[in-house]
Amino acid sequence: MMKLYYAPHTCALASHIALEDAGAEYSIQRISFAANEQRTPGYLAINPKGRVPSLVTERGILTETPAMLAFIAQTFPKARLAPLDDPFRFAEVQAFNSYLCATLHVAHAHRMRGTRWADDPAAIAAMQRKVPDSVGACYELIENRMLRGPWVMGDTYTICDPYLFTVAQWLEGDGVDPARFPEVRDHRQRMSERAAVRKAIAEELAEELA
Amino acid sequence: MMKLYYAPHTCALASHIALEDAGAEYSIQRISFAANEQRTPGYLAINPKGRVPSLVTERGILTETPAMLAFIAQTFPKARLAPLDDPFRFAEVQAFNSYLCATLHVAHAHRMRGTRWADDPAAIAAMQRKVPDSVGACYELIENRMLRGPWVMGDTYTICDPYLFTVAQWLEGDGVDPARFPEVRDHRQRMSERAAVRKAIAEELAEELA
Repeated sequence: MMKLYYAPHTCALASHIALEDAGAEYSIQRISFAANEQRTPGYLAINPKGRVPSLVTERGILTETPAMLAFIAQTFPKARLAPLDDPFRFAEVQAFNSYLCATLHVAHAHRMRGTRWADDPAAIAAMQRKVPDSVGACYELIENRMLRGPWVMGDTYTICDPYLFTVAQWLEGDGVDPARFPEVRDHRQRMSERAAVRKAIAEELAEELA
Repeated sequence: MMKLYYAPHTCALASHIALEDAGAEYSIQRISFAANEQRTPGYLAINPKGRVPSLVTERGILTETPAMLAFIAQTFPKARLAPLDDPFRFAEVQAFNSYLCATLHVAHAHRMRGTRWADDPAAIAAMQRKVPDSVGACYELIENRMLRGPWVMGDTYTICDPYLFTVAQWLEGDGVDPARFPEVRDHRQRMSERAAVRKAIAEELAEELA
């Protein structure tokens, strides 16, 4: 059985939803960022990056959301979470997820994780001020050029959808008005009505309150 | 025939080398960052992100290095550039490439592309000062925990290798002494002796001088 290490309100939710979508048997283990648990020797032995998510499988441990999502899709092919037999379509899925990971998530991270890239408090504050712009620019592109609708890749639900839904949770916190991006907003709403999404969120919330 | 849009000294080199490794038929097209060609309407029609690389295929256009590398590996399976029949091993490859894309490349980008994340010149200067530390920390992890040797994934060459080689070109420019990371340095040397690598670099240089 797989085990997903996650923290609430992080990108780990994407893999959590995908595990649900796949019908996988898995457990979840919360890492408390408030307690800095991601930097403990125990967790660093699991993921030396000190980040979430991590997915413990019977073969070993995986990290990095785009890699984990593709792994879940390939491990549970019956769930049809990616166009596994079409390298071009699969690459389109992967390109979308890579953009979320390396551009959108990175823009977002400048709000809370500025110390990764500067030491000066004034510089960190300057980064925070630009987050609404830089994150907003990502959503401009997603809204107008990338999100085909009703799902990210068009008529077929894929591993792009839980990932977009997950990062779109951060819109308001990043100072970006969802009303500017009706396609993204509608996608978020559409996702929030899915049973797998409700279950994943409820599980994370239940552990948080436990 | 595929066409790779690239700029010299960028991560596009990784896909260029992989196309050579794969024995693909392709052409290359240089985008001049000095002339801001990546922001022209013509190029934005190819890649609305205004970045390189872009890979024009007969099916459409792909972007994002991790996605392109996996696409090249899947499209040319005889070249054995990734463990295509083993989702776990494939995910390990993808996780490594995702780390280069979303953490190492991003740390590096704070040296020259700080305006993506702050407007204040003092903040941009503060970001630049931290690059040796943040990029160095990535290489600590790669050297000690990720690079198995002689190739990234161990005995078998994969699409991780041209990507690591490509980003390792930036070490000195980022103020990181390669002598601190002998495994990475030796990998870079090993790669530089491969015919595919020499050909890709020579092609980019020839176009630059043309």
